[in-house]
Amino acid sequence: MGKPIGSAEIICVGTELLLGDIVNTNATFLSRGLADLGIPLYRHTAVGDNPGRLSSALAEAFSRSDAVFLSGGLGPTCDDLTKETVAAFFGLPLRTDEHTAERIRSHFAGTHRLMTDNNLKQAMVPEGATVFDNDYGTAPALAVDKDGKLAVMLPGPPSELEPIWRDRIVPFLSARSDGIIVSHNVYLAGIGESAVEDRLRGLMVASENPTIAPYVQAGEVRLRVSARAADRETGDRLCFELIDRVKAGEVGPYVYGIDVGSAENALLSVLRERGMTLSCAESCTGGLIAKLITDVPGCSDVFAGGCVTYSNAAKISLLGVSPATLERFGAVSEQTAAEMARGARTALGTDVALATTGIAGPGGGTPEKPVGTVYIAVSRSSGETVEKLSLSPKRDRAFIRRIAATRVLELALRLIGGK
Amino acid sequence: MGKPIGSAEIICVGTELLLGDIVNTNATFLSRGLADLGIPLYRHTAVGDNPGRLSSALAEAFSRSDAVFLSGGLGPTCDDLTKETVAAFFGLPLRTDEHTAERIRSHFAGTHRLMTDNNLKQAMVPEGATVFDNDYGTAPALAVDKDGKLAVMLPGPPSELEPIWRDRIVPFLSARSDGIIVSHNVYLAGIGESAVEDRLRGLMVASENPTIAPYVQAGEVRLRVSARAADRETGDRLCFELIDRVKAGEVGPYVYGIDVGSAENALLSVLRERGMTLSCAESCTGGLIAKLITDVPGCSDVFAGGCVTYSNAAKISLLGVSPATLERFGAVSEQTAAEMARGARTALGTDVALATTGIAGPGGGTPEKPVGTVYIAVSRSSGETVEKLSLSPKRDRAFIRRIAATRVLELALRLIGGK
Repeated sequence: MGKPIGSAEIICVGTELLLGDIVNTNATFLSRGLADLGIPLYRHTAVGDNPGRLSSALAEAFSRSDAVFLSGGLGPTCDDLTKETVAAFFGLPLRTDEHTAERIRSHFAGTHRLMTDNNLKQAMVPEGATVFDNDYGTAPALAVDKDGKLAVMLPGPPSELEPIWRDRIVPFLSARSDGIIVSHNVYLAGIGESAVEDRLRGLMVASENPTIAPYVQAGEVRLRVSARAADRETGDRLCFELIDRVKAGEVGPYVYGIDVGSAENALLSVLRERGMTLSCAESCTGGLIAKLITDVPGCSDVFAGGCVTYSNAAKISLLGVSPATLERFGAVSEQTAAEMARGARTALGTDVALATTGIAGPGGGTPEKPVGTVYIAVSRSSGETVEKLSLSPKRDRAFIRRIAATRVLELALRLIGGK
Repeated sequence: MGKPIGSAEIICVGTELLLGDIVNTNATFLSRGLADLGIPLYRHTAVGDNPGRLSSALAEAFSRSDAVFLSGGLGPTCDDLTKETVAAFFGLPLRTDEHTAERIRSHFAGTHRLMTDNNLKQAMVPEGATVFDNDYGTAPALAVDKDGKLAVMLPGPPSELEPIWRDRIVPFLSARSDGIIVSHNVYLAGIGESAVEDRLRGLMVASENPTIAPYVQAGEVRLRVSARAADRETGDRLCFELIDRVKAGEVGPYVYGIDVGSAENALLSVLRERGMTLSCAESCTGGLIAKLITDVPGCSDVFAGGCVTYSNAAKISLLGVSPATLERFGAVSEQTAAEMARGARTALGTDVALATTGIAGPGGGTPEKPVGTVYIAVSRSSGETVEKLSLSPKRDRAFIRRIAATRVLELALRLIGGK
C-alpha cells in the first residue's frame, strides 16, 4: 500500500480564498485529520484558479514533501483546473472513468435537473488514479501515487470534502501511516490561560510523549494531551497517565471534563446523568446559549427551551420579571438576572435555568455600566447564583456575547459539579 | 511614500494552524483588506513556529512578490520568531524601540499584572522599521521597507490584528495604492445559484470592469460586483450601472437588497423603515434565528425577543400551541409551525413573528418525516404563511439549521417586500 508519509502539505485552490470571500476551513479540517493520522504537516498554501500558479505551488510542495493534499478546482467549469494541473505534473493523460460518468448521469437522472456536457468533465481522471466516490456531489476525490509522490485531490465544498475524507480517504491513508497520534482534551473552568501555563510549566517542558499544551477558545481553556503510539490503546494509556497527573496537581480542581468538547456538552452530560432538565433566559446573548446547546445532537432529553427577552416587555411577559425590579435596578442588574433565571425555570418547568443580561455593545454603554458589563445567573431549586462579568469594552459584540455564554455554562457546571 | 504594491502574499505563522487547532481567519481578513485596497494578492502560506521554514517561505514569497504580510509570531515567548526572521532576511539588527518599551511598561502598570522580562522582547524591532501601536495588546505591528520589498508584520490574535489593520495599516498602505477596488453585493432570495448563473452568464462574461460573480453562503445567493477605479465615486458609479442592469433583467424580481450583509440585516432594515417589530419561535433552529438577529448591533428597536421551544410542553406553555394540534399533526407540521408563529406574535406583542419546526438530525427522522424536513412560518396581522423545506437528509445538523434560519428570514422578506 505504499510507504508511510513522512511529510505532507496542503494546497487549497480558489480565487475566492484570495479575495477573502470564504474562510479556508478546509485547511483546518485537513490539518486536524492529518494530525489524527500522525502525518507531519509542514505547510498550507492557497492559490487562485490559475493553472500556472497552481503548477508552481505543486512543484515546490513536492520538492519538500512526500504528499500533497489539494482541495478545490475539481468542478465542472472551465475555472476548475486542479486535475489537469496534477496530471501534467505527473506526466499522465486524463481518461474518462466510466464508473464516475455513470454515477454523474444517474445523479442528474435522480434530480430531474438537466445535465450539461461540462458535468462529464468531472469524470475525467489522471490515468491510474484511485477514484473515491463522492456521496454528496458529482466530483470524485482522486489520488495519484507515482515516483514516491502522493497527490490527493478533494472537492472544495466542505459538505463534500469532510465526509469523503472521513469515509474514503482516512481508510486509504491509515494503511500507510507509521503509528498514530492519539489526543485527548482536558477542559478547565474558572482559571485563565496564563495561570494554567504557570502551574503546568514544569510538566509541559518535561513531557515529550505525550505532549501537553494549553489552548484558549471563546474564553475556555483546554489542555490538549497528544501521544504518538503504535496503536490507539497504547496512545490512550500514555495520555491518561499524564491526565491523571494533571488532575492530581494544582490545576486539578479546575478540571470539569475530559473530551467533553465544550462547556455546553459537559453541562448536558452532567444534567443527563442526574436526570435534570435545563432552560435559559437570554438578553444580551440573544439566543446564542440556546443555539450552542441545541448544536449538540440529542440535547432534547435535557433542554426544554428558552426565552430570548430583548425588550423589557418580553422580560415581564415571558419570564415574569417584576416591573419594579426593572425600574429600580435596570435591565442590566444582578436582580434582573436572578429574576430572569428564576422566571425561565418556572415558565419552562426545569430543574436548572441559565440567564444573561448585559451590554454587548457597541452602543448602550454608560459610565456606570460600560459595554462589557454582563450579569450571568443560574437558578436551581435552592435559589439563584449571580456573577458579574466586566469584560473589556474594547472587545467586540461577538466576543462579549460568546464569553458571556461560555461563562454562564461554566458557572452552572461549577455549581452542579462538573467532574 | 514608496511605490505602489504590484503583488502581495500573506504568510501566517503558527503551529496551531498546522495542527488544525484554529481556523486561519487572519488570512481571510487580510485578503479582504488587500482587495479593498486594490492590492493584487497571489498566495496564502501558513507555516509553523519554525524559523527555518518561515525563512524559506519568506524568501520564496519575495522572489515572486513586492510585499509580504505576515501574521503571528510577534509575542513574548521563545516560539515567537517572526521579527527575528524578517530582520535576518533584510540583514537588519534588532533594536529596542523605546516608545514601545514604555507602552508595554505602562500597559502592565495599568493591569497590576507582573511584567516579566520576556515582555520587553516585544519592544525589539528591526532597525529602521515603522512601528504601529497596538491598542489591544502589547506586540506592535511593524513594517520594513527596503530594496523595493515591503514586509508588514501583524500580531496573530484577530482581536489585535483587525483593529491595527483598520486603524494603522490601511492609512499606511493607502498612500501607496494604485487606484482602489470598490465592491457591492446584491442579495437574492428564492432562486438557486445555478439558475442565477444561467440567467446572468451573458452579463458575467461581458463584464470586465466591473466584474460580477455569484457566491453562495449558508443557502443565500449573492452577486459581488467589483470595479477597479481611481477613486470611490467612480467605482461606485461603475458598480451601480451594472447593478441597475441586473435589477432590470431576469433575476431582478429575486433581488431583495444591496449591501444588506445578510437576510437578517435586510429584514431588520425593512421592518425598521416601516416601524414594525419582530419576534420568533424556534424549535429545530434552537435559538439560531434569535442569535443571527441579535448579532446585528442596534437590533433592539425592532426585535423584541423569542422563544426556543424544544419540548412540546414549552410550545404549549410559552406559545399557546394547542395540545390537540401537537397530538393530531405532530410537532413537525404545518399546523404547529403556524401556531408557533402566531403564538410568538401574540406573546411578544410584535407585528411579525417567525417560526421553525423540523428535524435537524442526525436522529429523529421517520419515513414520513425524514431528517431535513422543516416547516417555516411567518405570522403577520393578516395571518400565517407556512412553507415546507425538504432538505437532503445527508446534510448535517448545522447545515439544516442554518438553511432553515436563512429561509424563514427570506420568506419574511418576500412577504413584507424587501427591495
